[in-house]
Amino acid sequence: MIDTMPATITAAILVIGNEILSGYTKDENIEYIAKNLMERGIRLFEVRLVRDEELAIIEAVTALADRYTYVFTSGGIGSTHDDITTASIAKAFNIPIEQNVEVMRLLASYYASNGVEFNVARQKMAELPVGAKLINNPVSVAPGFIVKNVHVMPGMPDILRAMFDRLKLVLNGGPMVYSRTVSCMVGEGVIAHDLGKIQSTFPDIEIGSYPHLQETGILSTNLVLSGIDEVKLEKATEVVRKLIHSLGG
Amino acid sequence: MIDTMPATITAAILVIGNEILSGYTKDENIEYIAKNLMERGIRLFEVRLVRDEELAIIEAVTALADRYTYVFTSGGIGSTHDDITTASIAKAFNIPIEQNVEVMRLLASYYASNGVEFNVARQKMAELPVGAKLINNPVSVAPGFIVKNVHVMPGMPDILRAMFDRLKLVLNGGPMVYSRTVSCMVGEGVIAHDLGKIQSTFPDIEIGSYPHLQETGILSTNLVLSGIDEVKLEKATEVVRKLIHSLGG
Repeated sequence: MIDTMPATITAAILVIGNEILSGYTKDENIEYIAKNLMERGIRLFEVRLVRDEELAIIEAVTALADRYTYVFTSGGIGSTHDDITTASIAKAFNIPIEQNVEVMRLLASYYASNGVEFNVARQKMAELPVGAKLINNPVSVAPGFIVKNVHVMPGMPDILRAMFDRLKLVLNGGPMVYSRTVSCMVGEGVIAHDLGKIQSTFPDIEIGSYPHLQETGILSTNLVLSGIDEVKLEKATEVVRKLIHSLGG
Repeated sequence: MIDTMPATITAAILVIGNEILSGYTKDENIEYIAKNLMERGIRLFEVRLVRDEELAIIEAVTALADRYTYVFTSGGIGSTHDDITTASIAKAFNIPIEQNVEVMRLLASYYASNGVEFNVARQKMAELPVGAKLINNPVSVAPGFIVKNVHVMPGMPDILRAMFDRLKLVLNGGPMVYSRTVSCMVGEGVIAHDLGKIQSTFPDIEIGSYPHLQETGILSTNLVLSGIDEVKLEKATEVVRKLIHSLGG
């Protein structure tokens, strides 16, 4: 699909943090970003979860930035010793880190108005790659940032969502992907042959076959058709419906 | 950590399927595998979710197999046209596909006893890389398989769990990782400096700092310490507790 649909706007998510992989914290960001991307016609093609390890972050962000239109990262941009995302991403793109004047001003004013000391640890959140664009943080002020096509956000779901809700408005959207689902009580083995032929007839329509066990223990299959051309999609769906009907499913 | 703890048994999970990335189906396998790995002292270091695309699967499985002790994949080994996991993994390791005699026998007997035709589509599930070891499937017979350090399982949670519950018993376990959590009402910016010093004093103990908004809107921080040496872990935790206490948190 990547090769045959060059106009597709694609995205990847990179979740950074030992706490997610150890199961200590449940990720709540992937689904939120995915759903919102879909509404903009941006197709999520890959997700990676890595530990707070410099090499792991560098390798993942480099590979994903190279391959997809947009990359969104979550986690690791706070003020403690385990927050190494910013430094690792700067290193990945060979961009030096600087104390960002605008962020220093934002944070100084925020902490001053709250009567909180703007100490060295908190100043770490102003250290960004040179030339990074800021992502506004309406919750706790310390911004996310953009380097090349990589959008770096914190892991805390409330903050990430507030950031992403604005950020998504300025992303280049793609054509909407429509989908139709045909559910049937027929196993995959019965329909596989004919379904494969239908897929060949409609190369622009993606046909997925997802078997699942119902609570009753009965195996059923959901056939999900998707594509950007709604007329073709409707045609293909009709052919699939007829197939299922002919099989008594 | 990868470099300094060579004896650690590590793992990665590769989830394969357009339906997961499109949000159509929710993954239920990552958490299950992660939790069970932890109980065996095997540390989950990376997770990737990719589409049903040959190149994406080949690249991911090759990278992960090279880097971690174990790789577990879910999805894409059924009988329909979109099930390309087996062929892609065989290609990744340059191993030819053959019709596995044992699987043919298992499936033929299963379908015969259920009065179901063992057609060409269903025979696809017997096509495995030459030399693959089988993973027993107590639910629907068609087995998963092992090639090198890669353990290939279907996406359906009931089947994957039944397979994995047996499979995990034969994996080489690592030393148990213990953890302690110190919760406090202190922001990261207050503790970051001292916490970093504590981390330097206890290099074998991993100290993670996870801020989160409570429902009341109050920002609190969970400090999670983990390590395989419980005595050192207890010592480090005590030092962190004292720090928090001294800050009135």
